[in-house]
Amino acid sequence: MAHGMGGKALPDTAKQDDTSWLAATYRRTRQFSEQLCAPLLAEDMGLQACPETSPPRWHLAHTTWFFETFLLKPHLPGYRPHNPAFEYLFNSYYNGIGEQYPRPQRHLLSRPTNDEVMAWRHLVDAAIDTLLTQTDNLNGLMQLGINHEQQHQELLLTDLKYSLSFNPLSPRISRPINTTNQANESTPALTFQCFEGGLVDIGAHSGFAFDNETPRHKAWLEPFQLANRPVTQGEFRTFIQDGGYRNSDLWLSDGWSWVQQKGIERPLYWNAALSHHFTLAGEQPLADNQILAHVNYYEADAYARWAGKRLPTEQEWEHAARAQAIAGNFADEGLFQPGTVRNSALSHLFGDVWEWTASAYLPYPGFQAESGAVGEYNGKFMCNQMVLRGGSCASSASHLRASYRNFFYPHLRWQFSGIRLASNPRTKHA
Amino acid sequence: MAHGMGGKALPDTAKQDDTSWLAATYRRTRQFSEQLCAPLLAEDMGLQACPETSPPRWHLAHTTWFFETFLLKPHLPGYRPHNPAFEYLFNSYYNGIGEQYPRPQRHLLSRPTNDEVMAWRHLVDAAIDTLLTQTDNLNGLMQLGINHEQQHQELLLTDLKYSLSFNPLSPRISRPINTTNQANESTPALTFQCFEGGLVDIGAHSGFAFDNETPRHKAWLEPFQLANRPVTQGEFRTFIQDGGYRNSDLWLSDGWSWVQQKGIERPLYWNAALSHHFTLAGEQPLADNQILAHVNYYEADAYARWAGKRLPTEQEWEHAARAQAIAGNFADEGLFQPGTVRNSALSHLFGDVWEWTASAYLPYPGFQAESGAVGEYNGKFMCNQMVLRGGSCASSASHLRASYRNFFYPHLRWQFSGIRLASNPRTKHA
Amino acid sequence: MAHGMGGKALPDTAKQDDTSWLAATYRRTRQFSEQLCAPLLAEDMGLQACPETSPPRWHLAHTTWFFETFLLKPHLPGYRPHNPAFEYLFNSYYNGIGEQYPRPQRHLLSRPTNDEVMAWRHLVDAAIDTLLTQTDNLNGLMQLGINHEQQHQELLLTDLKYSLSFNPLSPRISRPINTTNQANESTPALTFQCFEGGLVDIGAHSGFAFDNETPRHKAWLEPFQLANRPVTQGEFRTFIQDGGYRNSDLWLSDGWSWVQQKGIERPLYWNAALSHHFTLAGEQPLADNQILAHVNYYEADAYARWAGKRLPTEQEWEHAARAQAIAGNFADEGLFQPGTVRNSALSHLFGDVWEWTASAYLPYPGFQAESGAVGEYNGKFMCNQMVLRGGSCASSASHLRASYRNFFYPHLRWQFSGIRLASNPRTKHA
Amino acid sequence: MAHGMGGKALPDTAKQDDTSWLAATYRRTRQFSEQLCAPLLAEDMGLQACPETSPPRWHLAHTTWFFETFLLKPHLPGYRPHNPAFEYLFNSYYNGIGEQYPRPQRHLLSRPTNDEVMAWRHLVDAAIDTLLTQTDNLNGLMQLGINHEQQHQELLLTDLKYSLSFNPLSPRISRPINTTNQANESTPALTFQCFEGGLVDIGAHSGFAFDNETPRHKAWLEPFQLANRPVTQGEFRTFIQDGGYRNSDLWLSDGWSWVQQKGIERPLYWNAALSHHFTLAGEQPLADNQILAHVNYYEADAYARWAGKRLPTEQEWEHAARAQAIAGNFADEGLFQPGTVRNSALSHLFGDVWEWTASAYLPYPGFQAESGAVGEYNGKFMCNQMVLRGGSCASSASHLRASYRNFFYPHLRWQFSGIRLASNPRTKHA
Repeated sequence: MAHGMGGKALPDTAKQDDTSWLAATYRRTRQFSEQLCAPLLAEDMGLQACPETSPPRWHLAHTTWFFETFLLKPHLPGYRPHNPAFEYLFNSYYNGIGEQYPRPQRHLLSRPTNDEVMAWRHLVDAAIDTLLTQTDNLNGLMQLGINHEQQHQELLLTDLKYSLSFNPLSPRISRPINTTNQANESTPALTFQCFEGGLVDIGAHSGFAFDNETPRHKAWLEPFQLANRPVTQGEFRTFIQDGGYRNSDLWLSDGWSWVQQKGIERPLYWNAALSHHFTLAGEQPLADNQILAHVNYYEADAYARWAGKRLPTEQEWEHAARAQAIAGNFADEGLFQPGTVRNSALSHLFGDVWEWTASAYLPYPGFQAESGAVGEYNGKFMCNQMVLRGGSCASSASHLRASYRNFFYPHLRWQFSGIRLASNPRTKHA
Repeated sequence: MAHGMGGKALPDTAKQDDTSWLAATYRRTRQFSEQLCAPLLAEDMGLQACPETSPPRWHLAHTTWFFETFLLKPHLPGYRPHNPAFEYLFNSYYNGIGEQYPRPQRHLLSRPTNDEVMAWRHLVDAAIDTLLTQTDNLNGLMQLGINHEQQHQELLLTDLKYSLSFNPLSPRISRPINTTNQANESTPALTFQCFEGGLVDIGAHSGFAFDNETPRHKAWLEPFQLANRPVTQGEFRTFIQDGGYRNSDLWLSDGWSWVQQKGIERPLYWNAALSHHFTLAGEQPLADNQILAHVNYYEADAYARWAGKRLPTEQEWEHAARAQAIAGNFADEGLFQPGTVRNSALSHLFGDVWEWTASAYLPYPGFQAESGAVGEYNGKFMCNQMVLRGGSCASSASHLRASYRNFFYPHLRWQFSGIRLASNPRTKHA
Repeated sequence: MAHGMGGKALPDTAKQDDTSWLAATYRRTRQFSEQLCAPLLAEDMGLQACPETSPPRWHLAHTTWFFETFLLKPHLPGYRPHNPAFEYLFNSYYNGIGEQYPRPQRHLLSRPTNDEVMAWRHLVDAAIDTLLTQTDNLNGLMQLGINHEQQHQELLLTDLKYSLSFNPLSPRISRPINTTNQANESTPALTFQCFEGGLVDIGAHSGFAFDNETPRHKAWLEPFQLANRPVTQGEFRTFIQDGGYRNSDLWLSDGWSWVQQKGIERPLYWNAALSHHFTLAGEQPLADNQILAHVNYYEADAYARWAGKRLPTEQEWEHAARAQAIAGNFADEGLFQPGTVRNSALSHLFGDVWEWTASAYLPYPGFQAESGAVGEYNGKFMCNQMVLRGGSCASSASHLRASYRNFFYPHLRWQFSGIRLASNPRTKHA
Repeated sequence: MAHGMGGKALPDTAKQDDTSWLAATYRRTRQFSEQLCAPLLAEDMGLQACPETSPPRWHLAHTTWFFETFLLKPHLPGYRPHNPAFEYLFNSYYNGIGEQYPRPQRHLLSRPTNDEVMAWRHLVDAAIDTLLTQTDNLNGLMQLGINHEQQHQELLLTDLKYSLSFNPLSPRISRPINTTNQANESTPALTFQCFEGGLVDIGAHSGFAFDNETPRHKAWLEPFQLANRPVTQGEFRTFIQDGGYRNSDLWLSDGWSWVQQKGIERPLYWNAALSHHFTLAGEQPLADNQILAHVNYYEADAYARWAGKRLPTEQEWEHAARAQAIAGNFADEGLFQPGTVRNSALSHLFGDVWEWTASAYLPYPGFQAESGAVGEYNGKFMCNQMVLRGGSCASSASHLRASYRNFFYPHLRWQFSGIRLASNPRTKHA
């Protein structure tokens, strides 16, 4: 999973070293988690449809556990854990801290109740306030905790969408997007922007970053082209209607096995008629110009092959994105689904959907794991997963940057994951 | 599962034909379901720890679906189902009614909410009241619905106990029994009562009965002996300490495979120290004279072999119980766990724990399935399961009788299922 | 599995107590095992298509292990096992003897080779000859070993058929039956013979019998009717064409789950066109008057319900078969597939196919397990299986009797298992 | 799997264009396959212990199918397949050719027999001889077929070792290595050779190569150090004795799950006492200076972390190996197990064991799949696998080169896969 990676505060502007800024950011982030749960009913707070997902209540508790475990217990003199049992119940995967409650059973934790979890959150919030008045050298850990909570906000939304999708009553917890307008808009043409390549710098170099974005290092890129925008629902429907899911030539071997064994015929959440998809605003019509989401790496790779293109590497993506502003359709908008494509220039790199790259999630050259429990897992997920770049309609804008590396197993689809095509120039310069 | 079997109202006393008696019984039964949920929090109402169990909210909804489907829709003119989607969501296994929502996913139905289910219940209750004022020939179906709801009350308790047991916080929803008194009491000696056998009558002959108890028929019994009381926790601990779970000689082949593959070392809910067990009153000390529960057929059979005895057949059990009053520790007491043994005479046949018999669940000679949807499933469970007799601390007293046949798969333990020994007389008379 | 049950030599004629008769029977039985393997190639001897089956070479070795373990080691002074490793490799399930090589991996035992197993067989045969000249009180154990080997001869054939069926080349190891004649014959009408019932005697009373056939005891039978012959391929094809596999009303709940989960549409070995079936003589046309085989209990039960009938209980079957001669199509014929129905009288009770009964495999009243290792498993299979009666085209005639109880799990189909219908008389006398 | 990749004949010396050289190489390669099976008994030829492996007989047939399918059918006028059923039975995974017999069931193909497969091989060999006299432009396809057969020779050996290891009799099919000498030898110290890195060329540039080695391209390497030799059995035993398999800090998350779920405590084939390992020469003592084999990627990565080092990337490995001669312990020696370490210089890069790299198996920049069936699968395995470099004691010397990319899933251990450490220089120059 992409959540909970260790982080490093790289040399940066004075602003982020300011304690009052940190306290305000902390408070705003914590409140946003609770705001996301506002439309949920008590009955929704324990839903967990598969082991990869977690109930909303668990997310609220686990992020609180994180601040208690890594900030309050080691750094606030006299602080005692609210309930020692919570150290086990809400530890996700930190072996250095201790045993963990079995992940597939999180939905069985009806206690602590919603009210009890909220009370614990507020106790921890108060203690963090106290901590910040007493010390000023926890910037890195605090930013890690804040970014950790932002990751869980995204997971809370994607997990919830997955769980609610099993209910034929199609519950709604957000407002629908204006699909009438969508249908009237034409889709900007797909074009490709050329990049020269050469010896480029890759990785984070300033501000907060997770350690997997470091160290900054050189990489050689051949010339490449990158699509101006992600693939749309309309384009992917053409792939389906052209027999894309039945043509083994288009698929990686593991992808074809997945298609065959699961009987896959369409993206997650699409209905059989290819007319509607389930969203956090309930069942909604598909729109030709809405950005495609909820495909896995196998589907992204097969679509690219069908289109005569390929997926970009993470280095190509980062190189192209470096100059782009972090603007788009984020969780901040409260839409919680990808928007429509509106621009003929290179756009939508951030927001809407995470974009699968052709790169396996591996350590950068010279990568060093953090010491201690918070960094125990640095790199422990660097196998069997693929890198996604950008950020989605469920990410906070303040959480993203060009060097950000998200990663998931290639068969998973419950994230807002989409496709941006790349290609090799006609005439090779290498 | 033992719930939802078709039923027949056999010729009986005038009392049960009386509509006002029926209306009162209906109302009392429906209220008891809600009373059982009173100590539960909203968060508990969706818990489902395995596919065999169902969430409390689902039980409340399914029993309502039963009255709507089999009473109101066919018999109350003008009645329209409250929500057509509920016909699918809350159908348990009636193929004749239509498709069913997948059983393992019932915990994902956060909607309809608790309040919505309660509102539906009360609408249906009002409609049943109307129905009973309009017609007087639905006695059989009404009694079936009432007994069906009683079965689900027991399942609600056993399912809930199973789900709560996964929470290390050991939630309590009932009051503990007085274990101090228990420890001071001595356990009445285990003795055996002799029965002559011969050609006996088996099966229901008056009052309401499920169709699997019919037709009444003859069976030949050899002389046999039946224990005066069920096996206690103290006795079963001796079996464990004597290596019972490690001695393959004591086990059926399928039972030994179960022990080996699951690494079983003790009854469900017992802790590793053999000192405490989880109950609906939380973690409680084991007591030597408390009646043993939560063993499966394999464990019951192995214990009997270790003790040099055997389990009774269902015919032996019924023959012995025919003369006994239906008295004991039932759900009516609100204790929801087996009590202590107190009597040296033949006792505890009803209440405390269901007693595994050596009989497979099969149709009686001449058994005929009911026609129509309500009887679609008559007999469809008559394979691979074993018969249990009596009734438990989670059964209503008014639900039981000597001819009652409960049945579960031999590997299952989450019911209040215990052991009563039988044996063959020293000198055979056959 | 039905093989390897403990046995008892009941009081019988002088013939079977005679040592020379015993030696000759032993020798003939051992040779028959080898004769069955004569048409097999070296490559066939290790085939094992699923854990329930065993390779031919393993059967030859295991039956030899049985004589070495239960006769030679305890009773022939100075005898030393041929190879101590074989005690582990060829022990099937006797925990009292020791650990067992994992059943699903028997196909991985390329060593000992075919030649080595044959050499071991002949060494053991010579030692048994010596043993029989030295002692005359091993009649019971010797007959048990001989009957055990006969059971494995049947399994060798059914296991082999199953394994070869996975080869699209359709290997043949026996001669085909004359299907031209079959097509010209008309099928004798299905009629039902009436039996009065009452208090009857059930179980073995003389000659060799397995202990599960004892003790002889009384049972009460209601009047019943039994079909004159088993169901044919033609009749079962009508069931299929009538939608039998798609109508949930006809199926036990566990059977319907099996049909749905496995996508079952026809008996084992039938092709999709319902025109041919795989046999040990290769792919052969189905014939309307050939006796149906390779259905499991669920299919047998569903067919009976579709036909408006039921399966007989094992007591009804035994009572009806008591007066019948043991004649029919046995392994002795070398045909290894069911024949055609030829007779309008009660017939085919023995040979052709084992007949599923409606009885669960349970101990008879007063059943006592043998002491010691040979009897360790008496009764350990008496759970979760159904009784079959009669004997099949893969059984030896000398192995069968009216009281013989075969048993298999209800979902299994690789035995020659078929259907004989029973019914209740129109006017009940009970 | 690493077998069956498409290939390209890059511009090379005249020698390999010579038809007589090609015919001789073909004949020698084909004979070597048969020579490897010479010590096998008929019973061994069908062994298949898991779906990833194949029986020896299947390997002999599949490689023949390859020449028939891709050379004879399209290029030899009038050639007709020996048996049309073989096109299905011996197609491994070429969807463009047609359906495939299910991989896990290959052990069930007792027919065609060993003799029949050998006869088919010789018919195909004769036809290839004819083909080569008629045409001279099949160099690329012929070399592909030859290299394909060499890959299956290695798989035949590793698959066979895996299957035989399940037999407690520890069959031997090769001669043991001289372990007495081993014990007397001291192990050369582990040292690290420094490489400058920079912008280097990666990929094949002349001679035959598989297409996954192309196109040749540039890559930027930071300075790195590479161990002079692979890790030994003695060194890995120290890792085990230091608790390596019980320390979660050392493991990738997926690796730790694998260790926990499978209860892994040592390399494949090692006994519990850490004193012996199973080899194709039977059970043999471990030796401190014998090169370690049969660890998977997770074990290799954990060992490197324990040692304070890391695994090399495939680019680092190739860059270091470019200047090395292809010399070592290959299948040509007939030893079929890794040898002892003997040299203090950079050595053992080829032969003994494949070396896990830290690189995921992905397409090189600009990689293009071949057209047509032979190239259908180009790249279809480029997901979820890790690259291994070098070659093993089961590889032919003539099959290897510095640019060769082998690849397996990170959890697999049945190949001769070992560990060579790398590290970053103390002072970074980047």
